Amino acid sequence: MDIIGTAAARVDGVAKVTGQAEYASDITVPGMLCGKILRSPHPHARILSIDTGAAEGIPGVRCVLTREDFRDRNPWFSGRIQDHPIVALERALFAGQPVAAVAADHEAAAEDALRAVAVEYEPLPAVVGIEEAVAGGAPRIHESAPGNICFSDRLEKGDVAAGFAEADTVVEDTFTFPMVYHYAMEPHVAIAKVDAEGVTVWSSCAHPFGVQLELAHIFDLPLSAVRVIIPYVGGAYGSKSGAKIEPLAVALAQKCGRPVRVAQNVSEAMMTVRRHSALCRVRTGARRDGTLVAKQAEVFLNTGAFAELGPVVTSRTLTRILGPYRIPHIRVESHCVYTNTVSAASFRSIGGPQTAWANESQMDILADRLGMDPLEFRLKNLLHRGEELKPGGKPLDADLREGLGQVTRRIGWDGPVAASGAGRGLAFGVTDPGAPLASTSTVHALSDGSVVLHIGTSEIGQGSRTVMSQIVAEELRVPLDQVRVRPPDTAYTPYDRSTGSSRSTTVMGKATQLAAADAREQILELAMEHFEAPREAVELADGEARAAGQSVSYGELIRRHFAMQGGEIVGCGYAHSGMATAPANPLFWEIGIGAVELDVDRDTGEVRLQRYIMAADVGKALNPLQCEGQDEGAAMMGIGHALMESIEYGDGQILNPNLVDYRVPGFENLPATFESILVENGDGPGPYGAKGMGEGGIIPVAPAVANAVFRCTGARVKDLPLTPEKIWRAMRNNDEGQA
Amino acid sequence: MDIIGTAAARVDGVAKVTGQAEYASDITVPGMLCGKILRSPHPHARILSIDTGAAEGIPGVRCVLTREDFRDRNPWFSGRIQDHPIVALERALFAGQPVAAVAADHEAAAEDALRAVAVEYEPLPAVVGIEEAVAGGAPRIHESAPGNICFSDRLEKGDVAAGFAEADTVVEDTFTFPMVYHYAMEPHVAIAKVDAEGVTVWSSCAHPFGVQLELAHIFDLPLSAVRVIIPYVGGAYGSKSGAKIEPLAVALAQKCGRPVRVAQNVSEAMMTVRRHSALCRVRTGARRDGTLVAKQAEVFLNTGAFAELGPVVTSRTLTRILGPYRIPHIRVESHCVYTNTVSAASFRSIGGPQTAWANESQMDILADRLGMDPLEFRLKNLLHRGEELKPGGKPLDADLREGLGQVTRRIGWDGPVAASGAGRGLAFGVTDPGAPLASTSTVHALSDGSVVLHIGTSEIGQGSRTVMSQIVAEELRVPLDQVRVRPPDTAYTPYDRSTGSSRSTTVMGKATQLAAADAREQILELAMEHFEAPREAVELADGEARAAGQSVSYGELIRRHFAMQGGEIVGCGYAHSGMATAPANPLFWEIGIGAVELDVDRDTGEVRLQRYIMAADVGKALNPLQCEGQDEGAAMMGIGHALMESIEYGDGQILNPNLVDYRVPGFENLPATFESILVENGDGPGPYGAKGMGEGGIIPVAPAVANAVFRCTGARVKDLPLTPEKIWRAMRNNDEGQA
Repeated sequence: MDIIGTAAARVDGVAKVTGQAEYASDITVPGMLCGKILRSPHPHARILSIDTGAAEGIPGVRCVLTREDFRDRNPWFSGRIQDHPIVALERALFAGQPVAAVAADHEAAAEDALRAVAVEYEPLPAVVGIEEAVAGGAPRIHESAPGNICFSDRLEKGDVAAGFAEADTVVEDTFTFPMVYHYAMEPHVAIAKVDAEGVTVWSSCAHPFGVQLELAHIFDLPLSAVRVIIPYVGGAYGSKSGAKIEPLAVALAQKCGRPVRVAQNVSEAMMTVRRHSALCRVRTGARRDGTLVAKQAEVFLNTGAFAELGPVVTSRTLTRILGPYRIPHIRVESHCVYTNTVSAASFRSIGGPQTAWANESQMDILADRLGMDPLEFRLKNLLHRGEELKPGGKPLDADLREGLGQVTRRIGWDGPVAASGAGRGLAFGVTDPGAPLASTSTVHALSDGSVVLHIGTSEIGQGSRTVMSQIVAEELRVPLDQVRVRPPDTAYTPYDRSTGSSRSTTVMGKATQLAAADAREQILELAMEHFEAPREAVELADGEARAAGQSVSYGELIRRHFAMQGGEIVGCGYAHSGMATAPANPLFWEIGIGAVELDVDRDTGEVRLQRYIMAADVGKALNPLQCEGQDEGAAMMGIGHALMESIEYGDGQILNPNLVDYRVPGFENLPATFESILVENGDGPGPYGAKGMGEGGIIPVAPAVANAVFRCTGARVKDLPLTPEKIWRAMRNNDEGQA
Repeated sequence: MDIIGTAAARVDGVAKVTGQAEYASDITVPGMLCGKILRSPHPHARILSIDTGAAEGIPGVRCVLTREDFRDRNPWFSGRIQDHPIVALERALFAGQPVAAVAADHEAAAEDALRAVAVEYEPLPAVVGIEEAVAGGAPRIHESAPGNICFSDRLEKGDVAAGFAEADTVVEDTFTFPMVYHYAMEPHVAIAKVDAEGVTVWSSCAHPFGVQLELAHIFDLPLSAVRVIIPYVGGAYGSKSGAKIEPLAVALAQKCGRPVRVAQNVSEAMMTVRRHSALCRVRTGARRDGTLVAKQAEVFLNTGAFAELGPVVTSRTLTRILGPYRIPHIRVESHCVYTNTVSAASFRSIGGPQTAWANESQMDILADRLGMDPLEFRLKNLLHRGEELKPGGKPLDADLREGLGQVTRRIGWDGPVAASGAGRGLAFGVTDPGAPLASTSTVHALSDGSVVLHIGTSEIGQGSRTVMSQIVAEELRVPLDQVRVRPPDTAYTPYDRSTGSSRSTTVMGKATQLAAADAREQILELAMEHFEAPREAVELADGEARAAGQSVSYGELIRRHFAMQGGEIVGCGYAHSGMATAPANPLFWEIGIGAVELDVDRDTGEVRLQRYIMAADVGKALNPLQCEGQDEGAAMMGIGHALMESIEYGDGQILNPNLVDYRVPGFENLPATFESILVENGDGPGPYGAKGMGEGGIIPVAPAVANAVFRCTGARVKDLPLTPEKIWRAMRNNDEGQA
């Protein structure tokens, strides 16, 4: 292989660093209006009346959209549970929920109109936290959900009571994980146009075809009448999975008969989507020798006002709370809980960090109780390749000891620490990312030798255009700079399920590999005809066919075949249900491992990260530099969750809906040593044995840090983030306990 | 067949009649400037200096483009002969040639700037007509072309001197055909944008990939960096074949770093392209019994200031002047002549009307000299199916007697005329339209059952989206309204050679038929898997697969195959060199036959058309109504050429560059009876046996009318158009001759 496995420079690097790359917020559609959203000031309120008269009278205001516009038509986002209206109907369910929207010639008029819409509310009691929401007598948020339980799921294996009876040591802990924000650099932007052709949306979303499908359902159109165009996307991390502001933009455009642009700022984006906060009660039992015998867990996820992806995240926690360990007796219950808060949805490794935070923290608590080294304890219980992790699911497809060994050797697990008083911690993140199938790719070989790839994968910063170009260049035997990837446009680009679930390189990469191979076979046939030579006598390399000492460019082969006037060869590849082997779920296991060395300021409780070593078991790193970038980016995000991030609510309102009060990590928060290890065994179902990555790196950070804090201070914090105050208090409590 | 052969309503009909269909002139690109062209006032002049200082100082003016901008880069339109610069270099070669161009914030500033550009010219002697241009001592227009002969070609068969020696009767005549204008309803519009992605052009052109290729050559870019987007086009007729104003728009956009729109008015369009005027000297010999024995011809085409397609048109006249007759001895010479006039290029049936005007007029002159009926004379010499028309070319693939018989029966050739003093005439138009190969088509079956077709064929009013939808619906067995055709966008749409040469239904239609059949086969495989049934047990109809009394929609089959989450099946079809049988040229013969009944006002010379019957031998009419529309539109255009149209020059200037002075026919010029006959023998190489049509109908009109005028007045006019004055003078000369 020539190009696969090399750290090829990003094909979009120059366009991005020179500011020429076009994002949704750069797009201007002729005649487009400015759309603005009026949001509920109350976390829960009955809407008694909405008077739009004054707003509509403001010069430049073109229309005001309210629940009145949905009297005779579907107000619901598509989805399994129809609980999410485009604008609030009878009640507003969280502070920040869209209640009305305006479209105006310019921003000032739109903002004046927002102030002029008169909404009469009757405030209702609201709940923000999980425990409040499920308590008896709590106000019911949706009629359909008694006890505010939106969805529950469970997993059982063996006999958990018998298991605990066998245990010599049992620990039981409750862990909490806060609401966190994605902080994609680019907040949500959508421009909608409605005309005789149907609906066209330019969007910052990550899933062009997912949004197309949702809009087709909402507005009752065939797929071919909904066009979603995605330029570069400035980060997503799940915040742009599926429709967010697109249905509202379309409804506005439809009402006023003009294109409408809705661009949110960071505060609005924080009122649009977040990660599920969680409360996990975990009970684990082990024999004296460290053998795990039983695990029981209860997981509550705060999904906010609407279900969105909550049920899927809930089911995913069932296995994610187990960790990659051999446990004969298991019982897990997970509940998705409605609250009067911003709706939660996808976020890099759905349900992963929340559950690993609980389980990997408790693994160290249990090891400590057993008097065992955390590494030794994990190694004793770690699953081997081919063992079952998820009952009925695909057996483990990786050698976890290999990556763990590399990480612990690199961190020097048993050696001396660099700084006096420092400690080390480690944790696993092994998850079933889902990675749904359904990708179609077409590769177009043009008559001048240039090659164009059509894929529905959005370039959200992950480097998909680069890695897909590498796949095409490798398969088609052309130089990388002859390949160009077009941005997704559902009017032209073939279908792709989504840009998420760590699936693009594996699933769309497979489709692209097959598409390029299809094009290569067609070119090979042309070359055989041209040279009048058998297959084995023809070599393809560097965009040329060669035989018997002669060569002819692909371009010339194509021109000749099409009678010397141009022409184009199209290769098509599919990733479909035939790609998965039974059991098909998950398509692959995603493996992240992290180990940290840190010390804690004994006076302030501040954590100072010294070294962080991570490993991702990627099957095959098609572009190692990009894999490292993904893994390091994920770990950096994990550092934020570990140490500082939390959306804080007070009186039903977000107290820190901005990037001054909501802090994310910066370069100053990076440990001095920050290293990524890629484990490559070619054991993935993707092209060249690749499996998905980019999510696993976020998972182990918080428990590894908490475990290290415990190991150097004896203080155990079970509530993220690990702020200096919490650690200081925990240390003081320990000191008092000892005193 | 369910949908093929039916007069399906136009799929774009509603969008067009409600004004919602988008044309290039409807498009606004954000930030686009207004581009305007400064044209030479002189038919031939040395450009001594160009001072742009004052123009550049006008507020709102962003840049002025002149020859200075091409000092270090390619100024030439791509093409075989590099004689056509984007703006004039050392000399201006016709009145109207772009000398400079400006881009400004608004039209007024652009027009002010045009007035402020100071160009110093040294006028040079100019030539307008063919005879002037080829006369000794004529000013030389291009250094490379002595005698102003741009290109010559010849065709010889047998021994023409010996042939004439065998002849009992020989006639020799000179015919002239004027410059005519296409009058597409929409003049040329192009918007160009140049950015990091390359060049993007929204254009009214008919050949997206032709323009892409030209721009790639001119601006030295790979094909994948040139994007040409074509919305609906408001008529073309050849005037939009290839780049016209696009290179200038791109050069302007590149210079000023902003998108630039150049939209021409009708006068400017008339200064951009026209049909070749012609002078044909034809000598034909026949035996006493009417058997043709020899033909000698000399054709001169006035190509104007630049070669453009002139050489191709010139070569095409070699066979087009022969007519569909058996002639043992032939010698034809054709010459393409430069003059100081607007450049000529493609026009519905290149070189066809000019040469048929000469030859089909002379056939009647010769019949008259032989004392034979023109029909009888033609029938005696008419080629049979399988005989050779063009030496070495594809044998005639049609039964000409069938169409001729239908036309002459319908007009009542031997019967009494309706009006006293009326007469009848007929003529043939049999041509090799070229119809180059090289089309690729993809058919996309979506997961909700809707189907999308990607083709590079421009909808120029000919109905391509409708007929291609019919092909897809027929092959894929889906209702017509589930099919949608995307407009060409070279970034996404697969390659197509051109929308012209009567090739789209035949060549792109074939590729589309194969693409749809490919998709159908893939769906059939899914159905066989679904029903666990053999191929012969599965029926596809109405967008469903059926077997054993059960049915499943295509959409569901696709969703299941892709694991219930969407998906898409792509079918691909090619029309390539394998489509043509040897000899491959032409791909098919295009057949038009016309017969007219008319009378002439003896006092004024005005021709009054009574009845016009036309036949087109179409192989298979995929949509008969559209075929009739094409044929009638072509004949209507032929009526204009026959009776009224001519671009008139005086002092090197166009005297009638507007639609007041340049008249085209209106409904009042239609004969009361105007009928189209479609001959269908399924003998074409296209889908379902279709062959090309839409050009043939224009050819026979003028000679049929002139022949009828002769038959009812005895006056023979050899110089088009047949204005009342010319006929009146010819009648008077006859009277004087007889007196």
